[in-house]
Amino acid sequence: MFSIPNEPFNRLVSELMKMPGIGPKTGQRLAFYILSLGNNEAKDLTEAIQEVKNRVGFCEKCFFISVDKICPICQDETRHQKTLCVVGDSKDLLAIERSREYRGLYHVLGGIISPLEGIGPENLRIKELLERIKKEKFDELILALNPTVEGEATILYLTKLIKPLALKISQLAYGLPVGSDLDYADELTLSRSIAGRQEVL
Amino acid sequence: MFSIPNEPFNRLVSELMKMPGIGPKTGQRLAFYILSLGNNEAKDLTEAIQEVKNRVGFCEKCFFISVDKICPICQDETRHQKTLCVVGDSKDLLAIERSREYRGLYHVLGGIISPLEGIGPENLRIKELLERIKKEKFDELILALNPTVEGEATILYLTKLIKPLALKISQLAYGLPVGSDLDYADELTLSRSIAGRQEVL
Repeated sequence: MFSIPNEPFNRLVSELMKMPGIGPKTGQRLAFYILSLGNNEAKDLTEAIQEVKNRVGFCEKCFFISVDKICPICQDETRHQKTLCVVGDSKDLLAIERSREYRGLYHVLGGIISPLEGIGPENLRIKELLERIKKEKFDELILALNPTVEGEATILYLTKLIKPLALKISQLAYGLPVGSDLDYADELTLSRSIAGRQEVL
Repeated sequence: MFSIPNEPFNRLVSELMKMPGIGPKTGQRLAFYILSLGNNEAKDLTEAIQEVKNRVGFCEKCFFISVDKICPICQDETRHQKTLCVVGDSKDLLAIERSREYRGLYHVLGGIISPLEGIGPENLRIKELLERIKKEKFDELILALNPTVEGEATILYLTKLIKPLALKISQLAYGLPVGSDLDYADELTLSRSIAGRQEVL
């Protein structure tokens, strides 16, 4: 990428390029945008960043991002208190909330087991999960992890640990994405979708 | 977009979404990234934003972004001092620098004439351009504006003003993008490319 001898500008571009999905071109475009802001608008942006760093932490119960010690989801007594959905991170929790299909509680692991990235079970909030299961006596545990090799390995690992505690354990269904084309589905997805076929009632 | 009751987080997402090309999903992803930063890294980002706002202004001669009163390009005496390339904004100047084809000076208009966006000639640095042409006695003026209706209108407007000053005025060539497929070219580009055909030497 061609760069001009303008130290503060280039420094901002390289800070922006550390963000996920931001390459040199987008980084430069965003830096020009920031440069075009009025002083108050720029302050709004930096203050919003500082505020998030200062005020947002994690829920002590489920480890979802939260301003308060206990997050609004854990505080919400209208939610089913006997179903626990285990997710990799807060983004995945939000994705499930968007689907509006689930109304139970959550537990955020803080990642999934990935030897390649050096993430082992000891880096995840598994101890806290086991304690919650023992204390809160859930009826069902939904392991809603990414449909990847790492996600499956984590599901296997957790199932082995939790099985002895005798509660129903389920995982998300594999299959064809809604609105997709059977002809374009990859073989693995299609074979999972055949193996997991459901009776038409 | 589904949002959680987390005021600082949502505020950061909405600040990020003001940036060009950042929708709700990317905004949320970037906010999670910022949340995951260490305190020092977050400070690097906010300081880079503040530094750009405090230290970067415009070159007094060509109006390209600059830390100093006169930008490095205007200060560079090895560049052809008798050719002036007129661009819409600093981003366009950088695009031309990247091509490494041009080694003359620049003038940044600060936009192009666009009645729809309420940008008239009085909002652009046209007065400054005319003064420079009279003072610096260029041999050639290249109007390197966007190949759009607004760009062409601005070229027409400028040509009318500058013609009496008797210097060579040119504009960028229309034609097929290099590496593209003739079959996929839109009709307007193809007809421009035929009209502007060049003799094979």
